[in-house]
Amino acid sequence: MKKPLILITNDDGIYAPGIYSLTQAMQGLGEIFVVAPLVEKSAVGHAITLSDPLRVLEVNREGKFFGYAVNGTPADCVKLGSKCILPRNPDLIVSGINQGPNTATNVIYSGTVSAAAEGTIMGIPSIAVSIASFTKSEFAFAAKFSCQLAELVLKNGLPERTLLNVNVPAVPENEIEGVVITRQGKGRYEEAFDKRVDPNGRTYYWLTGKRMILDNGNDIDDLVVMQNKVSVTPIKYDLTNYSFIEELKKWNIKME
Amino acid sequence: MKKPLILITNDDGIYAPGIYSLTQAMQGLGEIFVVAPLVEKSAVGHAITLSDPLRVLEVNREGKFFGYAVNGTPADCVKLGSKCILPRNPDLIVSGINQGPNTATNVIYSGTVSAAAEGTIMGIPSIAVSIASFTKSEFAFAAKFSCQLAELVLKNGLPERTLLNVNVPAVPENEIEGVVITRQGKGRYEEAFDKRVDPNGRTYYWLTGKRMILDNGNDIDDLVVMQNKVSVTPIKYDLTNYSFIEELKKWNIKME
Repeated sequence: MKKPLILITNDDGIYAPGIYSLTQAMQGLGEIFVVAPLVEKSAVGHAITLSDPLRVLEVNREGKFFGYAVNGTPADCVKLGSKCILPRNPDLIVSGINQGPNTATNVIYSGTVSAAAEGTIMGIPSIAVSIASFTKSEFAFAAKFSCQLAELVLKNGLPERTLLNVNVPAVPENEIEGVVITRQGKGRYEEAFDKRVDPNGRTYYWLTGKRMILDNGNDIDDLVVMQNKVSVTPIKYDLTNYSFIEELKKWNIKME
Repeated sequence: MKKPLILITNDDGIYAPGIYSLTQAMQGLGEIFVVAPLVEKSAVGHAITLSDPLRVLEVNREGKFFGYAVNGTPADCVKLGSKCILPRNPDLIVSGINQGPNTATNVIYSGTVSAAAEGTIMGIPSIAVSIASFTKSEFAFAAKFSCQLAELVLKNGLPERTLLNVNVPAVPENEIEGVVITRQGKGRYEEAFDKRVDPNGRTYYWLTGKRMILDNGNDIDDLVVMQNKVSVTPIKYDLTNYSFIEELKKWNIKME
Protein backbone atom coordinates (compact mmCIF):
# COMPACT_ATOMS: atom_id res chain seq x y z
CA MET A 1 0.00 0.00 0.00
CA LYS A 2 1.18 3.50 -0.81
CA LYS A 3 2.19 5.57 2.20
CA PRO A 4 -0.35 8.28 3.04
CA LEU A 5 0.60 11.86 2.23
CA ILE A 6 0.26 14.06 5.32
CA LEU A 7 0.32 17.87 5.48
CA ILE A 8 1.25 19.35 8.87
CA THR A 9 0.58 23.01 9.62
CA ASN A 10 -0.16 25.30 12.57
CA ASP A 11 -0.83 28.91 13.51
CA ASP A 12 2.02 29.47 15.97
CA GLY A 13 4.48 29.56 13.06
CA ILE A 14 6.95 27.07 11.59
CA TYR A 15 9.52 27.69 14.36
CA ALA A 16 7.11 26.90 17.24
CA PRO A 17 7.86 23.90 19.49
CA GLY A 18 4.43 22.25 19.04
CA ILE A 19 4.73 21.66 15.30
CA TYR A 20 8.18 20.19 15.80
CA SER A 21 6.99 17.61 18.37
CA LEU A 22 4.01 16.77 16.19
CA THR A 23 6.13 16.27 13.08
CA GLN A 24 8.60 14.02 14.91
CA ALA A 25 5.77 11.87 16.29
CA MET A 26 4.07 11.50 12.89
CA GLN A 27 7.17 10.35 10.95
CA GLY A 28 6.24 6.67 10.88
CA LEU A 29 2.72 7.31 9.63
CA GLY A 30 3.35 8.45 6.08
CA GLU A 31 5.12 10.91 3.84
CA ILE A 32 5.15 14.17 5.80
CA PHE A 33 5.18 17.71 4.41
CA VAL A 34 5.30 20.67 6.80
CA VAL A 35 3.81 23.89 5.34
CA ALA A 36 3.28 26.53 8.02
CA PRO A 37 3.18 30.29 8.52
CA LEU A 38 6.59 31.98 8.68
CA VAL A 39 5.50 33.97 11.73
CA GLU A 40 2.87 33.49 14.43
CA LYS A 41 -0.69 33.86 13.14
CA SER A 42 -2.71 33.20 16.28
CA ALA A 43 -6.34 34.33 16.42
CA VAL A 44 -6.41 35.00 12.68
CA GLY A 45 -9.58 32.93 12.35
CA HIS A 46 -10.26 31.81 8.82
CA ALA A 47 -8.31 34.63 7.19
CA ILE A 48 -6.97 34.13 3.67
CA THR A 49 -4.59 36.37 1.77
CA LEU A 50 -6.15 37.94 -1.32
CA SER A 51 -4.42 41.33 -1.54
CA ASP A 52 -0.79 40.25 -1.21
CA PRO A 53 1.33 37.73 -3.05
CA LEU A 54 2.42 34.65 -1.15
CA ARG A 55 6.04 33.51 -0.95
CA VAL A 56 7.51 30.17 0.09
CA LEU A 57 10.76 29.69 2.03
CA GLU A 58 12.53 26.41 2.84
CA VAL A 59 13.24 26.12 6.56
CA ASN A 60 15.74 23.96 8.49
CA ARG A 61 15.32 22.98 12.13
CA GLU A 62 17.89 21.13 14.26
CA GLY A 63 20.25 21.26 11.29
CA LYS A 64 17.94 19.40 8.90
CA PHE A 65 15.34 20.37 6.30
CA PHE A 66 12.06 20.73 8.19
CA GLY A 67 9.48 22.27 5.89
CA TYR A 68 8.08 25.19 3.91
CA ALA A 69 7.27 28.56 5.46
CA VAL A 70 4.61 30.77 3.85
CA ASN A 71 4.14 34.51 4.49
CA GLY A 72 0.41 33.96 5.01
CA THR A 73 -2.22 32.45 7.25
CA PRO A 74 -2.85 28.81 8.22
CA ALA A 75 -5.64 28.60 5.61
CA ASP A 76 -3.21 29.95 2.98
CA CYS A 77 -0.72 27.23 3.95
CA VAL A 78 -3.30 24.50 3.37
CA LYS A 79 -4.36 25.90 -0.01
CA LEU A 80 -0.86 26.69 -1.28
CA GLY A 81 0.66 23.55 0.24
CA SER A 82 -1.89 21.25 -1.38
CA LYS A 83 -1.82 22.94 -4.79
CA CYS A 84 1.81 24.07 -5.24
CA ILE A 85 4.11 22.26 -2.79
CA LEU A 86 2.85 18.72 -2.26
CA PRO A 87 2.85 16.34 -5.26
CA ARG A 88 -0.95 15.97 -4.86
CA ASN A 89 -3.70 16.75 -2.33
CA PRO A 90 -2.75 15.20 1.02
CA ASP A 91 -4.62 12.24 2.49
CA LEU A 92 -4.66 13.91 5.90
CA ILE A 93 -4.03 17.33 7.42
CA VAL A 94 -2.94 17.77 11.03
CA SER A 95 -2.82 21.30 12.43
CA GLY A 96 -0.93 22.03 15.66
CA ILE A 97 0.11 21.39 18.27
CA ASN A 98 -1.22 24.76 19.30
CA GLN A 99 -0.03 26.47 22.44
CA GLY A 100 -3.30 27.39 24.19
CA PRO A 101 -6.75 25.79 24.17
CA ASN A 102 -9.12 26.03 21.20
CA THR A 103 -12.40 25.25 22.90
CA ALA A 104 -15.85 26.86 23.16
CA THR A 105 -16.14 30.25 21.43
CA ASN A 106 -12.37 30.35 20.90
CA VAL A 107 -12.80 27.78 18.12
CA ILE A 108 -14.06 30.50 15.77
CA TYR A 109 -11.00 32.72 16.35
CA SER A 110 -8.55 29.87 15.98
CA GLY A 111 -6.08 29.76 13.13
CA THR A 112 -5.24 26.18 14.14
CA VAL A 113 -8.82 25.02 13.62
CA SER A 114 -9.23 27.13 10.48
CA ALA A 115 -6.39 25.23 8.80
CA ALA A 116 -8.20 21.97 9.48
CA ALA A 117 -11.50 23.53 8.32
CA GLU A 118 -9.82 24.55 5.07
CA GLY A 119 -8.80 20.92 4.67
CA THR A 120 -12.35 19.68 5.11
CA ILE A 121 -13.64 22.21 2.57
CA MET A 122 -11.16 20.68 0.12
CA GLY A 123 -12.48 17.22 1.05
CA ILE A 124 -9.37 16.20 3.02
CA PRO A 125 -9.79 14.56 6.47
CA SER A 126 -8.31 16.97 9.01
CA ILE A 127 -7.45 17.21 12.70
CA ALA A 128 -6.65 20.25 14.87
CA VAL A 129 -4.68 19.70 18.09
CA SER A 130 -4.07 22.12 20.96
CA ILE A 131 -2.74 21.93 24.50
CA ALA A 132 -4.53 23.93 27.15
CA SER A 133 -1.68 26.14 28.27
CA PHE A 134 -0.10 29.27 26.86
CA THR A 135 3.08 28.83 28.86
CA LYS A 136 3.83 25.14 29.52
CA SER A 137 5.24 23.47 26.47
CA GLU A 138 5.19 19.76 27.13
CA PHE A 139 3.93 18.33 23.85
CA ALA A 140 5.00 14.66 24.07
CA PHE A 141 1.65 13.18 25.10
CA ALA A 142 -0.35 15.40 22.73
CA ALA A 143 1.95 14.39 19.87
CA LYS A 144 1.57 10.69 20.63
CA PHE A 145 -2.21 11.07 20.95
CA SER A 146 -2.39 12.96 17.64
CA CYS A 147 -0.53 10.15 15.96
CA GLN A 148 -2.97 7.53 17.28
CA LEU A 149 -5.95 9.63 16.22
CA ALA A 150 -4.41 10.27 12.80
CA GLU A 151 -4.18 6.51 12.25
CA LEU A 152 -7.86 6.13 13.15
CA VAL A 153 -8.84 8.95 10.78
CA LEU A 154 -6.80 7.43 7.95
CA LYS A 155 -8.55 4.10 8.57
CA ASN A 156 -12.15 5.33 9.19
CA GLY A 157 -12.34 8.60 7.26
CA LEU A 158 -14.50 11.49 8.46
CA PRO A 159 -17.99 12.68 7.43
CA GLU A 160 -18.30 15.41 4.81
CA ARG A 161 -16.92 18.79 5.89
CA THR A 162 -16.16 17.54 9.40
CA LEU A 163 -12.88 17.86 11.28
CA LEU A 164 -11.79 16.64 14.71
CA ASN A 165 -10.83 19.35 17.18
CA VAL A 166 -8.61 17.92 19.93
CA ASN A 167 -7.72 19.72 23.17
CA VAL A 168 -5.25 18.14 25.57
CA PRO A 169 -4.99 19.27 29.21
CA ALA A 170 -1.64 20.77 30.18
CA VAL A 171 -0.77 18.23 32.87
CA PRO A 172 1.73 15.37 32.99
CA GLU A 173 0.61 12.27 31.08
CA ASN A 174 -0.06 10.26 34.24
CA GLU A 175 -2.55 12.87 35.43
CA ILE A 176 -4.68 12.72 32.27
CA GLU A 177 -7.89 10.94 33.16
CA GLY A 178 -9.38 9.89 29.83
CA VAL A 179 -10.73 10.90 26.45
CA VAL A 180 -14.23 12.32 25.94
CA ILE A 181 -16.16 12.95 22.71
CA THR A 182 -17.44 16.48 23.28
CA ARG A 183 -19.41 19.33 21.80
CA GLN A 184 -18.37 22.96 21.41
CA GLY A 185 -19.23 24.97 24.52
CA LYS A 186 -20.65 28.48 24.60
CA GLY A 187 -18.02 29.80 27.01
CA ARG A 188 -16.49 33.09 25.92
CA TYR A 189 -14.38 35.94 27.17
CA GLU A 190 -16.03 38.96 28.74
CA GLU A 191 -14.11 41.60 26.81
CA ALA A 192 -12.25 44.36 28.49
CA PHE A 193 -9.66 46.77 27.13
CA ASP A 194 -6.62 48.03 28.96
CA LYS A 195 -6.37 51.69 27.93
CA ARG A 196 -2.85 53.14 28.01
CA VAL A 197 -0.91 56.15 26.79
CA ASP A 198 2.25 55.63 24.74
CA PRO A 199 5.52 57.62 25.26
CA ASN A 200 4.34 60.04 22.57
CA GLY A 201 1.13 60.83 24.45
CA ARG A 202 -1.17 58.82 22.18
CA THR A 203 -3.86 56.50 23.52
CA TYR A 204 -3.87 52.81 22.70
CA TYR A 205 -5.82 49.74 23.84
CA TRP A 206 -4.90 46.13 24.62
CA LEU A 207 -7.62 43.53 24.27
CA THR A 208 -7.97 41.58 27.50
CA GLY A 209 -10.88 39.84 29.26
CA LYS A 210 -12.12 37.30 31.73
CA ARG A 211 -13.10 33.79 30.76
CA MET A 212 -16.76 32.98 31.32
CA ILE A 213 -18.12 29.43 31.70
CA LEU A 214 -21.61 29.33 30.18
CA ASP A 215 -22.33 25.59 30.09
CA ASN A 216 -22.64 22.64 32.35
CA GLY A 217 -22.62 18.92 31.55
CA ASN A 218 -20.05 16.21 31.00
CA ASP A 219 -19.62 16.61 27.25
CA ILE A 220 -18.57 20.26 26.86
CA ASP A 221 -15.11 20.79 25.39
CA ASP A 222 -13.68 23.39 27.77
CA LEU A 223 -15.16 21.78 30.88
CA VAL A 224 -13.81 18.35 29.94
CA VAL A 225 -10.29 19.78 29.53
CA MET A 226 -10.57 21.46 32.95
CA GLN A 227 -11.28 17.98 34.35
CA ASN A 228 -7.89 16.82 33.00
CA LYS A 229 -9.44 14.85 30.15
CA VAL A 230 -8.69 15.02 26.43
CA SER A 231 -11.59 16.54 24.48
CA VAL A 232 -12.35 15.45 20.90
CA THR A 233 -15.09 17.50 19.18
CA PRO A 234 -16.37 16.85 15.65
CA ILE A 235 -16.62 20.30 14.06
CA LYS A 236 -18.63 21.12 10.92
CA TYR A 237 -18.83 24.52 9.26
CA ASP A 238 -22.51 24.38 8.35
CA LEU A 239 -23.55 27.66 9.91
CA THR A 240 -27.25 27.70 9.05
CA ASN A 241 -29.56 27.95 12.05
CA TYR A 242 -32.09 25.50 10.59
CA SER A 243 -34.40 25.68 13.60
CA PHE A 244 -35.02 29.40 13.03
CA ILE A 245 -35.90 29.24 9.33
CA GLU A 246 -39.65 28.68 9.68
CA GLU A 247 -39.97 31.44 12.27
CA LEU A 248 -38.00 33.84 10.08
CA LYS A 249 -40.30 33.14 7.14
CA LYS A 250 -43.17 34.47 9.25
CA TRP A 251 -41.46 37.87 9.61
CA ASN A 252 -42.81 38.75 6.19
CA ILE A 253 -39.70 40.59 5.04
CA LYS A 254 -40.62 42.83 2.11
CA MET A 255 -38.67 44.19 -0.79
CA GLU A 256 -38.95 47.71 0.60
CA MET B 1 -39.15 55.29 24.09
CA LYS B 2 -35.40 55.66 24.03
CA LYS B 3 -33.85 55.59 20.57
CA PRO B 4 -32.02 52.34 19.86
CA LEU B 5 -28.23 52.48 19.85
CA ILE B 6 -26.84 51.09 16.59
CA LEU B 7 -23.24 50.15 15.77
CA ILE B 8 -22.33 50.10 12.08
CA THR B 9 -19.14 48.43 10.90
CA ASN B 10 -17.74 46.65 7.83
CA ASP B 11 -14.63 44.96 6.46
CA ASP B 12 -14.01 47.14 3.40
CA GLY B 13 -12.77 49.95 5.67
CA ILE B 14 -14.32 53.17 6.97
CA TYR B 15 -13.75 55.01 3.66
CA ALA B 16 -15.64 52.44 1.53
CA PRO B 17 -18.82 53.53 -0.30
CA GLY B 18 -21.03 50.75 1.12
CA ILE B 19 -20.73 51.79 4.76
CA TYR B 20 -21.51 55.38 3.80
CA SER B 21 -24.75 54.47 2.00
CA LEU B 22 -25.75 52.19 4.88
CA THR B 23 -25.10 54.86 7.51
CA GLN B 24 -27.10 57.46 5.60
CA ALA B 25 -30.06 55.09 5.22
CA MET B 26 -30.06 54.11 8.90
CA GLN B 27 -30.06 57.66 10.31
CA GLY B 28 -33.77 57.74 11.17
CA LEU B 29 -33.66 54.43 13.01
CA GLY B 30 -31.70 55.32 16.12
CA GLU B 31 -28.49 56.75 17.50
CA ILE B 32 -25.79 55.64 15.08
CA PHE B 33 -22.11 55.00 15.82
CA VAL B 34 -19.76 53.96 13.00
CA VAL B 35 -16.71 51.98 14.18
CA ALA B 36 -14.89 50.38 11.27
CA PRO B 37 -11.41 49.26 10.19
CA LEU B 38 -9.11 52.06 9.05
CA VAL B 39 -8.08 50.01 5.99
CA GLU B 40 -9.68 47.19 4.04
CA LYS B 41 -9.81 43.91 5.98
CA SER B 42 -11.54 41.63 3.48
CA ALA B 43 -11.27 37.86 3.93
CA VAL B 44 -9.85 38.24 7.43
CA GLY B 45 -12.45 35.81 8.76
CA HIS B 46 -12.92 36.01 12.50
CA ALA B 47 -9.46 37.44 13.18
CA ILE B 48 -8.92 39.41 16.36
CA THR B 49 -5.85 41.43 17.32
CA LEU B 50 -4.04 40.07 20.36
CA SER B 51 -0.40 40.91 19.65
CA ASP B 52 -0.71 44.59 18.74
CA PRO B 53 -2.27 47.55 20.48
CA LEU B 54 -5.39 49.06 18.93
CA ARG B 55 -5.73 52.76 18.18
CA VAL B 56 -8.83 54.82 17.41
CA LEU B 57 -9.00 57.70 14.94
CA GLU B 58 -11.92 60.10 14.34
CA VAL B 59 -12.83 60.23 10.66
CA ASN B 60 -14.75 62.84 8.63
CA ARG B 61 -16.55 62.11 5.37
CA GLU B 62 -18.20 64.66 3.10
CA GLY B 63 -16.96 67.37 5.45
CA LYS B 64 -18.73 66.02 8.54
CA PHE B 65 -17.81 63.73 11.42
CA PHE B 66 -18.56 60.19 10.24
CA GLY B 67 -17.16 57.71 12.75
CA TYR B 68 -14.26 55.97 14.46
CA ALA B 69 -11.55 54.09 12.57
CA VAL B 70 -9.68 51.27 14.31
CA ASN B 71 -6.35 49.78 13.17
CA GLY B 72 -7.76 46.29 13.54
CA THR B 73 -10.24 43.77 12.19
CA PRO B 74 -14.05 43.93 11.99
CA ALA B 75 -14.31 41.75 15.13
CA ASP B 76 -11.94 44.16 16.92
CA CYS B 77 -14.20 47.07 15.92
CA VAL B 78 -17.24 45.39 17.48
CA LYS B 79 -15.43 44.58 20.73
CA LEU B 80 -13.65 47.93 21.08
CA GLY B 81 -16.62 49.94 19.82
CA SER B 82 -19.02 48.34 22.30
CA LYS B 83 -16.70 48.54 25.29
CA CYS B 84 -14.74 51.79 24.77
CA ILE B 85 -16.48 54.06 22.22
CA LEU B 86 -20.24 53.65 22.56
CA PRO B 87 -21.86 54.73 25.84
CA ARG B 88 -23.14 51.15 26.34
CA ASN B 89 -23.51 47.91 24.35
CA PRO B 90 -25.49 48.63 21.17
CA ASP B 91 -29.03 47.34 20.63
CA LEU B 92 -28.16 46.33 17.10
CA ILE B 93 -25.07 45.82 14.92
CA VAL B 94 -25.20 46.14 11.14
CA SER B 95 -22.09 45.15 9.18
CA GLY B 96 -21.68 46.22 5.56
CA ILE B 97 -22.60 46.96 2.94
CA ASN B 98 -19.90 44.67 1.66
CA GLN B 99 -18.66 44.87 -1.90
CA GLY B 100 -18.85 41.23 -3.05
CA PRO B 101 -21.13 38.33 -2.05
CA ASN B 102 -20.77 36.51 1.27
CA THR B 103 -22.59 33.30 0.44
CA ALA B 104 -21.87 29.55 0.65
CA THR B 105 -18.32 28.71 1.81
CA ASN B 106 -17.30 32.37 1.53
CA VAL B 107 -19.27 33.04 4.71
CA ILE B 108 -16.46 31.58 6.80
CA TYR B 109 -13.80 33.81 5.23
CA SER B 110 -15.91 36.94 5.54
CA GLY B 111 -14.88 39.81 7.79
CA THR B 112 -18.33 41.32 7.24
CA VAL B 113 -20.08 38.29 8.68
CA SER B 114 -17.49 37.89 11.46
CA ALA B 115 -18.34 41.35 12.78
CA ALA B 116 -21.99 40.33 13.04
CA ALA B 117 -20.96 37.00 14.59
CA GLU B 118 -18.94 38.87 17.20
CA GLY B 119 -22.10 40.83 17.97
CA THR B 120 -24.15 37.67 18.51
CA ILE B 121 -21.47 36.24 20.82
CA MET B 122 -21.88 39.39 22.91
CA GLY B 123 -25.67 38.84 22.87
CA ILE B 124 -26.38 41.74 20.48
CA PRO B 125 -28.77 41.18 17.51
CA SER B 126 -26.69 41.55 14.35
CA ILE B 127 -27.05 41.70 10.58
CA ALA B 128 -24.43 41.34 7.81
CA VAL B 129 -25.22 42.83 4.38
CA SER B 130 -23.38 42.34 1.08
CA ILE B 131 -24.03 43.08 -2.57
CA ALA B 132 -23.07 40.44 -5.09
CA SER B 133 -20.58 42.42 -7.12
CA PHE B 134 -16.95 43.39 -6.62
CA THR B 135 -17.12 46.22 -9.15
CA LYS B 136 -20.61 47.75 -9.34
CA SER B 137 -21.25 50.01 -6.40
CA GLU B 138 -24.95 50.81 -6.39
CA PHE B 139 -25.89 50.47 -2.74
CA ALA B 140 -29.21 52.37 -2.55
CA PHE B 141 -31.54 49.37 -2.61
CA ALA B 142 -29.36 47.29 -0.28
CA ALA B 143 -29.23 50.22 2.17
CA LYS B 144 -32.99 50.64 2.12
CA PHE B 145 -33.51 46.90 2.53
CA SER B 146 -31.05 46.80 5.47
CA CYS B 147 -32.98 49.55 7.14
CA GLN B 148 -36.28 47.67 6.83
CA LEU B 149 -34.70 44.46 8.14
CA ALA B 150 -33.03 46.34 11.00
CA GLU B 151 -36.45 47.59 12.09
CA LEU B 152 -37.80 44.02 12.06
CA VAL B 153 -34.82 42.78 14.08
CA LEU B 154 -35.23 45.57 16.64
CA LYS B 155 -38.90 44.62 16.94
CA ASN B 156 -38.65 40.80 16.89
CA GLY B 157 -35.18 40.11 18.27
CA LEU B 158 -33.14 37.13 17.08
CA PRO B 159 -32.53 33.67 18.60
CA GLU B 160 -29.44 33.11 20.74
CA ARG B 161 -26.12 33.41 18.86
CA THR B 162 -27.91 33.86 15.52
CA LEU B 163 -27.29 36.61 12.97
CA LEU B 164 -28.95 37.38 9.65
CA ASN B 165 -26.67 37.22 6.61
CA VAL B 166 -28.14 39.24 3.73
CA ASN B 167 -26.93 39.10 0.13
CA VAL B 168 -28.40 41.46 -2.46
CA PRO B 169 -28.04 40.83 -6.21
CA ALA B 170 -26.09 43.50 -8.09
CA VAL B 171 -28.88 44.52 -10.45
CA PRO B 172 -31.10 47.61 -10.60
CA GLU B 173 -33.88 47.63 -8.01
CA ASN B 174 -36.63 47.00 -10.57
CA GLU B 175 -34.93 43.74 -11.64
CA ILE B 176 -34.85 42.28 -8.12
CA GLU B 177 -37.42 39.51 -8.00
CA GLY B 178 -38.06 38.92 -4.32
CA VAL B 179 -36.67 37.91 -0.94
CA VAL B 180 -35.96 34.30 0.04
CA ILE B 181 -35.10 32.84 3.46
CA THR B 182 -32.14 30.64 2.59
CA ARG B 183 -29.51 28.28 3.95
CA GLN B 184 -25.75 28.42 3.52
CA GLY B 185 -24.68 26.59 0.36
CA LYS B 186 -21.67 24.32 0.01
CA GLY B 187 -20.34 26.10 -3.09
CA ARG B 188 -16.64 26.94 -2.90
CA TYR B 189 -13.75 28.03 -5.01
CA GLU B 190 -11.56 25.44 -6.68
CA GLU B 191 -8.22 26.89 -5.66
CA ALA B 192 -5.52 27.71 -8.12
CA PHE B 193 -2.39 29.78 -7.76
CA ASP B 194 -0.93 32.07 -10.37
CA LYS B 195 2.84 31.56 -10.05
CA ARG B 196 4.95 34.55 -11.11
CA VAL B 197 8.50 35.84 -10.83
CA ASP B 198 9.12 39.33 -9.44
CA PRO B 199 11.61 41.85 -10.98
CA ASN B 200 14.24 40.56 -8.54
CA GLY B 201 13.89 36.99 -9.80
CA ARG B 202 11.97 35.68 -6.80
CA THR B 203 8.90 33.47 -7.12
CA TYR B 204 5.54 34.53 -5.71
CA TYR B 205 1.96 33.26 -5.89
CA TRP B 206 -1.43 34.92 -6.24
CA LEU B 207 -4.42 33.02 -4.90
CA THR B 208 -7.05 32.65 -7.61
CA GLY B 209 -9.71 30.05 -8.40
CA LYS B 210 -12.90 29.08 -10.11
CA ARG B 211 -16.27 29.22 -8.38
CA MET B 212 -17.96 25.83 -8.04
CA ILE B 213 -21.69 25.36 -7.52
CA LEU B 214 -22.23 22.29 -5.33
CA ASP B 215 -25.93 22.57 -4.47
CA ASN B 216 -29.30 22.65 -6.09
CA GLY B 217 -32.66 23.73 -4.71
CA ASN B 218 -34.59 26.95 -4.26
CA ASP B 219 -33.32 27.87 -0.79
CA ILE B 220 -29.53 28.03 -1.26
CA ASP B 221 -27.97 31.44 -0.63
CA ASP B 222 -25.67 31.76 -3.66
CA LEU B 223 -28.19 30.22 -6.09
CA VAL B 224 -30.96 32.54 -4.90
CA VAL B 225 -28.76 35.60 -5.48
CA MET B 226 -27.94 34.33 -8.98
CA GLN B 227 -31.71 34.33 -9.63
CA ASN B 228 -31.79 38.07 -8.82
CA LYS B 229 -33.41 37.54 -5.42
CA VAL B 230 -32.29 38.82 -2.04
CA SER B 231 -31.06 36.00 0.19
CA VAL B 232 -31.51 36.14 4.00
CA THR B 233 -29.78 33.29 5.88
CA PRO B 234 -29.94 32.81 9.66
CA ILE B 235 -26.36 31.96 10.68
CA LYS B 236 -25.36 30.37 13.99
CA TYR B 237 -21.81 29.60 15.07
CA ASP B 238 -22.54 26.27 16.75
CA LEU B 239 -19.96 24.20 14.93
CA THR B 240 -20.53 20.80 16.53
CA ASN B 241 -21.42 18.02 14.09
CA TYR B 242 -23.99 16.47 16.42
CA SER B 243 -24.95 13.73 13.98
CA PHE B 244 -21.42 12.29 14.05
CA ILE B 245 -20.97 12.12 17.82
CA GLU B 246 -22.39 8.61 18.36
CA GLU B 247 -20.38 7.19 15.46
CA LEU B 248 -17.19 8.83 16.78
CA LYS B 249 -17.74 7.30 20.22
CA LYS B 250 -17.54 3.86 18.56
CA TRP B 251 -14.01 4.57 17.30
CA ASN B 252 -12.74 3.63 20.74
CA ILE B 253 -10.08 6.33 20.89
CA LYS B 254 -7.52 5.38 23.53
CA MET B 255 -5.21 7.39 25.70
CA GLU B 256 -2.18 6.04 23.85
